[in-house]
Amino acid sequence: MPTKNHRASSARAYHHGNLREALVTAGLELLERDGGADFSLREAARAVGVTVNASYRHFRNKEALLAAIAAEGFRRFAVALAAGAEQGRDPVDRMIGSGRAYVDFARHNPALFRLMFGRFGVTGHGEELLNAANAANSVLRNGLGEILGAAPDSPEVTLAAAKAWSMTHGLSHLVIDGQIDEHAPGFDQLVTSVLSSINP
Amino acid sequence: MPTKNHRASSARAYHHGNLREALVTAGLELLERDGGADFSLREAARAVGVTVNASYRHFRNKEALLAAIAAEGFRRFAVALAAGAEQGRDPVDRMIGSGRAYVDFARHNPALFRLMFGRFGVTGHGEELLNAANAANSVLRNGLGEILGAAPDSPEVTLAAAKAWSMTHGLSHLVIDGQIDEHAPGFDQLVTSVLSSINP
Repeated sequence: MPTKNHRASSARAYHHGNLREALVTAGLELLERDGGADFSLREAARAVGVTVNASYRHFRNKEALLAAIAAEGFRRFAVALAAGAEQGRDPVDRMIGSGRAYVDFARHNPALFRLMFGRFGVTGHGEELLNAANAANSVLRNGLGEILGAAPDSPEVTLAAAKAWSMTHGLSHLVIDGQIDEHAPGFDQLVTSVLSSINP
Repeated sequence: MPTKNHRASSARAYHHGNLREALVTAGLELLERDGGADFSLREAARAVGVTVNASYRHFRNKEALLAAIAAEGFRRFAVALAAGAEQGRDPVDRMIGSGRAYVDFARHNPALFRLMFGRFGVTGHGEELLNAANAANSVLRNGLGEILGAAPDSPEVTLAAAKAWSMTHGLSHLVIDGQIDEHAPGFDQLVTSVLSSINP
């Protein structure tokens, strides 16, 4: 039975704890390939060449895998936002750079974006997801705090964050849902204009 | 066979063309009850007491029913936006009133809102949906045109609409996706503050 042998050796290959990471990576691929989280834990296991039983050592169910995928999404998102900010010359410019990175992340990972910010939610799925979401949120808050000369957790920044987040999140949704055409001429200019109007 | 007789008489009761409307109404209820568009044309037919064959006289498939549901959604949405605007004393205040109505519509009809603005799209599903979506869009554009003293189809208003729409749409999504807590104290004030920062 070559298939079974192959699976057994794959399970051994993942012996050193990187099976968890491999399942998350496979889940990320299934998510974007299918455009949604309809895949099963069994499919993710099959994609990395192990049995679903082997996957249970890391994820007790599909929800636990989705939480790990969303957490990985927020870690990548935080890196992207920070890299976007680095393009800016001053605090406002850095905020626009982060905003552009936010929209680009949604465009390039629409299903992941929907998972991260959709009804799945960041609470009730363990600390890994909550911490990753908070870390991404901090990039926004720190940038706005810098502009306003206020602490990232001040009421002032909280309100500014709600405004900036609404604007950037709305633009992202309108683009990935096809309401605003990302292939239209002037799209980049439109994104910059909309993000520039955020007035913290 | 009382069930069959009942269905036959129901089909007769809908003889005068209001079966279409009844199917749309039933579809709207199924959409919100299930939180999504997973129901079948057969289920919508069953909900109004007719066979799926009777429903084919009005909708050739589920997609056609969804388009009619989304169109009805946009008509109700346009009415809500206009009513919201009427609360305002001046053009800016009217825009904020429309924005508040936008967020409230999403909160009270989350599944319908997702259908209307989601990947289903407003194009490629016939004129009824496109016209209804355009009519709702006109409420926003007319309000912004009034503020800016510009034609609703001017480039100036188009850019202002992209900003106002992004802000309002993002806030709505963050609320219906549970990212911003609508039950938190100060929620109404937050909505007003966010919408007031739209600067056309």
